[in-house]
Amino acid sequence: MDPRSNFALLPPLARRTPSRILYVVLDGLGGVIGAEPTALERARHPHLDALARDSALGRQVPVAEGITPGSGPGHLALFGYDPVGVPVGRGLLEALGVGATVGPGDVAVRGNYCTLDAQGLLVDRRAGRLPTPRSRALTARLAAAIPEIEGVRVEVLPGLQHRFALVLRGDGLGAAVADTDPQQVGVAPLAARATDAFSARTARLADRFVEQARALLAGEERANGVLLRGFGSRPSLPTLAELARLNPVAIAPYPAYRGVARLLGMHVLDEPGPGADVAAEVDALERVWDAGYDFFFLHVKGTDSAGEDGDEERKAGVIEEFDAQVPRLRALGPDVIVITGDHSTPGPLAGHSWHPVPVLLHGPWCEPDGMATFDEVHCHRGRLGPALPAPALLRLALANAGKLGKYGA
Amino acid sequence: MDPRSNFALLPPLARRTPSRILYVVLDGLGGVIGAEPTALERARHPHLDALARDSALGRQVPVAEGITPGSGPGHLALFGYDPVGVPVGRGLLEALGVGATVGPGDVAVRGNYCTLDAQGLLVDRRAGRLPTPRSRALTARLAAAIPEIEGVRVEVLPGLQHRFALVLRGDGLGAAVADTDPQQVGVAPLAARATDAFSARTARLADRFVEQARALLAGEERANGVLLRGFGSRPSLPTLAELARLNPVAIAPYPAYRGVARLLGMHVLDEPGPGADVAAEVDALERVWDAGYDFFFLHVKGTDSAGEDGDEERKAGVIEEFDAQVPRLRALGPDVIVITGDHSTPGPLAGHSWHPVPVLLHGPWCEPDGMATFDEVHCHRGRLGPALPAPALLRLALANAGKLGKYGA
Repeated sequence: MDPRSNFALLPPLARRTPSRILYVVLDGLGGVIGAEPTALERARHPHLDALARDSALGRQVPVAEGITPGSGPGHLALFGYDPVGVPVGRGLLEALGVGATVGPGDVAVRGNYCTLDAQGLLVDRRAGRLPTPRSRALTARLAAAIPEIEGVRVEVLPGLQHRFALVLRGDGLGAAVADTDPQQVGVAPLAARATDAFSARTARLADRFVEQARALLAGEERANGVLLRGFGSRPSLPTLAELARLNPVAIAPYPAYRGVARLLGMHVLDEPGPGADVAAEVDALERVWDAGYDFFFLHVKGTDSAGEDGDEERKAGVIEEFDAQVPRLRALGPDVIVITGDHSTPGPLAGHSWHPVPVLLHGPWCEPDGMATFDEVHCHRGRLGPALPAPALLRLALANAGKLGKYGA
Repeated sequence: MDPRSNFALLPPLARRTPSRILYVVLDGLGGVIGAEPTALERARHPHLDALARDSALGRQVPVAEGITPGSGPGHLALFGYDPVGVPVGRGLLEALGVGATVGPGDVAVRGNYCTLDAQGLLVDRRAGRLPTPRSRALTARLAAAIPEIEGVRVEVLPGLQHRFALVLRGDGLGAAVADTDPQQVGVAPLAARATDAFSARTARLADRFVEQARALLAGEERANGVLLRGFGSRPSLPTLAELARLNPVAIAPYPAYRGVARLLGMHVLDEPGPGADVAAEVDALERVWDAGYDFFFLHVKGTDSAGEDGDEERKAGVIEEFDAQVPRLRALGPDVIVITGDHSTPGPLAGHSWHPVPVLLHGPWCEPDGMATFDEVHCHRGRLGPALPAPALLRLALANAGKLGKYGA
């Protein structure tokens, strides 16, 4: 274990206190400084600006300079975990997110319903974004019909639209299996292919599952096949309670982020679900504010979705929607507020990027910069520096909340 | 070994030269930037400001962002040692500080005389801060009466007021033993409790020592018991001579800092002792300036004590007292001057904190900032950056003093 990692530093120092930390992740928040204004620069966000004036600003680096993080590593880093070398498959996050129990040794996979033609070639990788009720019915059918394969327990759980989660429960199942989704139409789905020697059995079980599912779905017009992606097992990670003695709760409407939260041992609120607006999330936050938690993870998805679509105007709109809720957040009186993203998703790039993510830390001893503008350029000049390693952010939040003792005599 | 650590980098590069480095530690120097002025901002320190104009400024991080250092880790980091994973018990520092020899395998402990009532419950954890002469007499009595326990050599050395140091010399003695001081009165002292399997014998010997001491002190009115704290063994560290080919001397009136200096192989001046003013320390520095040393560690305690008491005015006073001596320091003509703290001790927090520590580096190639104000805000903007890892500071001092060769061909 790296002696400078939070795994080594925090457990002996962390102490439980009544102070409360509000940790807001505006997914994909950051943009690229340049000729075009970023979404943060376009948006009017007077409440964020007022908060910024009394906060320390900076830009944080989730993985390493130049490295574009996926959502899993981006969130792990924000929560104090070194994301490097911790494989967190998307399948695992989705499966945990829809409520699956994934134990050590189990393998979790994301499933998509898809449309195949008479020759077995892909016509639509998402089966026309199947409506969720229809998808749930099909998933219930698969779950009932395929309880096990070769003595390995199989669990199939419904997701949103064309999605489901598959969990294989057993011993000796490696998770190093490549996706069966060829990422294009007009070709056949791929066979599952193990990329290490320990995962050959998993690949064979996956192929059997796909085969049996196709047989069961043969009569379906649109959803007559399945694709499997993001094979993953559960990494051995301490929970946030073990790492930092926190009693955390997550308000995260979308499955993958619920999955990250569950992986770290957070309690996850069932409501609100996908599509909720920010006000509904804050309603939920208010309901649990006095329920005994000391760490509140609030996840806002819309910034990332808009950035992925290259729509900076819509991204700015989500920032404005969040800004309008800031007074309600402050009214709760959190001891520490962190507002940042899990990575940047600049509209001009229409995808995740490596650019450092704006961050705002508000707390009693945060050393405010006094800059009343929350955007990339001001954050770059802020007290937290232009390249704060994301795992350091949790330490600063804990320190400001009085939750860390002294290191050494 | 971390290939970027000084342990790997410095030994092959370090070379002995006549140049002299003055390394001043104003203990707990830093404050928190905010609405209230810090002690550095309150104090008038024209000589420090003049020196700052010709120096590079910055803020340094002893352990890691958000981590509050104890004195041991704080000093180790300043002297170029990565403090993480190096357990330096307070008992070890105090024992070395009062002149004990602590070898590999020995266990060092801080002792307190205390007052117990007829039921054996604690009435005063410090025996009314016993006067030092009385304490020395009692310690001599214990030392004479308890030369060994179960064949293990016992050394008892006098400290200040109610304090003494205990060293157990033997093989197979672990140091993972919890304090017997319950940190409150009205209860009995705790039995020594081993926290790992290798330290059970140490705990038993400690209990025997406490028992025998109580029997010997039974007639005392105030000092009729002892408490043991900070069990520690000597970590295996290179000396500063081994690390950087330095021939260092320490002017450090208080035992714990003498202890750190001895741990790193510095010669430690006997005088001045506790309570000395800064001028007396500089007197001592002047006396040894031409004695062949090339690294001079000057430790000023008052800044930390005042900060711990929450007394920013007194802390500012100590800074002003030090400032008045700066012309004498400069008159000696050191090639390199470093002025910093081992951690921050902001008055408003009344204790150590995680905030980066102001640092000033003066040397022929230091790249002066030209800012004639030595305080947290200016240091934050300085050339050394807002978060210089403390172990890098020794490298910069050595480099400016011409004491480091080139890395690689």
